Amino acid sequence: MKTTLEETLRAIQPVQAEHLEHYRDRLDQLTKPRGSLGRLEEVAARFGAIRHPRPHTQGKVIFTFAADHGVARQGVSLYPSEVTAQMVRNFLAGGAAINVLCRHYGIRNVVVDVGVDADLSQLEGLRHSKVARGTQDLSQGQAMTRRQALRAMQVGIDLAQEFAEEGFHLMGTGEMGIGNTTASSAVFSALSGLDPDKTTGAGTGIDQQRRRHKVEVIRQSLQRHRPDPSDPLEVLSAVGGFEIAAIAGLILGGAALRSALVVDGFISTAGAALALAFSPTVGDYLFFSHCSNESGHARVLRWLGVRPLLDLDLRLGEGTGAAIAIDLVEASWKLLCEMATFGEAAVSQSS
Amino acid sequence: MKTTLEETLRAIQPVQAEHLEHYRDRLDQLTKPRGSLGRLEEVAARFGAIRHPRPHTQGKVIFTFAADHGVARQGVSLYPSEVTAQMVRNFLAGGAAINVLCRHYGIRNVVVDVGVDADLSQLEGLRHSKVARGTQDLSQGQAMTRRQALRAMQVGIDLAQEFAEEGFHLMGTGEMGIGNTTASSAVFSALSGLDPDKTTGAGTGIDQQRRRHKVEVIRQSLQRHRPDPSDPLEVLSAVGGFEIAAIAGLILGGAALRSALVVDGFISTAGAALALAFSPTVGDYLFFSHCSNESGHARVLRWLGVRPLLDLDLRLGEGTGAAIAIDLVEASWKLLCEMATFGEAAVSQSS
Repeated sequence: MKTTLEETLRAIQPVQAEHLEHYRDRLDQLTKPRGSLGRLEEVAARFGAIRHPRPHTQGKVIFTFAADHGVARQGVSLYPSEVTAQMVRNFLAGGAAINVLCRHYGIRNVVVDVGVDADLSQLEGLRHSKVARGTQDLSQGQAMTRRQALRAMQVGIDLAQEFAEEGFHLMGTGEMGIGNTTASSAVFSALSGLDPDKTTGAGTGIDQQRRRHKVEVIRQSLQRHRPDPSDPLEVLSAVGGFEIAAIAGLILGGAALRSALVVDGFISTAGAALALAFSPTVGDYLFFSHCSNESGHARVLRWLGVRPLLDLDLRLGEGTGAAIAIDLVEASWKLLCEMATFGEAAVSQSS
Repeated sequence: MKTTLEETLRAIQPVQAEHLEHYRDRLDQLTKPRGSLGRLEEVAARFGAIRHPRPHTQGKVIFTFAADHGVARQGVSLYPSEVTAQMVRNFLAGGAAINVLCRHYGIRNVVVDVGVDADLSQLEGLRHSKVARGTQDLSQGQAMTRRQALRAMQVGIDLAQEFAEEGFHLMGTGEMGIGNTTASSAVFSALSGLDPDKTTGAGTGIDQQRRRHKVEVIRQSLQRHRPDPSDPLEVLSAVGGFEIAAIAGLILGGAALRSALVVDGFISTAGAALALAFSPTVGDYLFFSHCSNESGHARVLRWLGVRPLLDLDLRLGEGTGAAIAIDLVEASWKLLCEMATFGEAAVSQSS
């Protein structure tokens, strides 16, 4: 039974303050100076409140959404579009960074073709949810139709539902798509009003001259489309990407079913920013994993008013930062559950 | 066969630049944009070079050194000294934060009484290496004799040797000791010349008034002792602690046997700063895990010229930050070992 975007948005409820208090009280009874586990306490209390009354961290999954971008032909990336499909094969063979990290942390990885510009229909182990073979070139016209945007979001909503029903309530976002930092920067600028120069970085590693070109491509595209920042579906259709749409859908769908959502890096943050534009309440369910080395990410995170957990100069995507952060959420939750209280351990409390 | 401090210092060799290059080259062949794993690449390459030619991350251990401090009677902590021994019992029972994290990450935890002011001789599972029942009050005289300082350092040197011989080559530092942020701040100020106001924080959570008192205690103590900053043994004897000495010894002993040393928070950094004063070369073997919420830590890390991996507002000690960072070292190393190269995965390289 599919849940539509509208039904999903209606189902998202804020996390209860009293549940947060319940878990914070528990943390204050544990054998440590009050607050001394810092951000891990904040994470543990929120994770508990999200999943109250029976939180647990079994069922961890990262979705790696792959899609291509018409704008890649504008020379905004170091790599050709073929790399998207090649990396999908690498994910399925277990040779990419996200595979190594998911194995290390015991996280299931689900690879989803939501719009790769290649026929991958014969590949086993891949989720086949292709909306189209890549977006249109956002510098020449709409990246996708509203209908395509909704379809790509629905891919995320459906996966969230399927996995939540199987007991996966700690979900991470990830992506692969040559050209997708360009689409993400455009989404950020469209939503925030920040000049593209402030939201655009070097992506896979282009030089300053190509970065300036990338900024111009985005600036001209936004001048052409002028998407209404209060209409996230319009922003997504004008300058987004299928994987960005799917991430937004996953976040909304997951939050509607009270799953904790761990947001990877720059591109995933574009999906999260769209999800927040649809429903500010989803913020209660989001854990931002890391500040990417992609210049612009720090500024966008400030604009969103969030502080990510990690700052490791990552700029790979795939869900790699989310994998590390999911494990931190799990460790935080175990601290809350497994530490002894002052009473249990007969440790004197502070004066 | 015990190795003395002098022999240990002679045995410490710099990590070879050509080995670092070897692992960096490998990282550049992996299926990811060059450098996109950020600090994890730096960690992986250095870990590889430290353990070249046969690095592996089996054998992870954190040493939690417990000791008391005479200066605690000056009212510098929220907690009474009894808490040190109570927490040792909590460690042995598995109820402390470090236990939860070591279980989560598969790290062995070794708890060492290097100077607790209680008779713990009957406790099983504890390493009995008590130098004395706490240091003397550093505000009234020397914290310890030079002989005691050497003995406490030897505890760390011996443990490093014992565990390195058993194949533990990824070692983390940790500690427990009411009053030990005071000793650590004094060590930092003595070594760096920074005013105690810059190196002193709230420890377990004292208010501003008590913090000012703590600063005064340290300032007066340093004015009384005036330890020679170029003589780390003199600094340690004047204002250090037994756990700080043991951490310095562990670091020197571990580096001499080419183990990777992961430094926990504020107090462990005091041990590391002393170790670096004995031998700047040990820096090649150190991974600073996190910037503590203890004010002063960020400044001290800058003075040391190091950038820790994490910034999670932790201020608990025990080795908790080291546990998280040890796992990051392991994950980084697996990325280097297990990711496919561009050639293996048939992924196009950048233009």
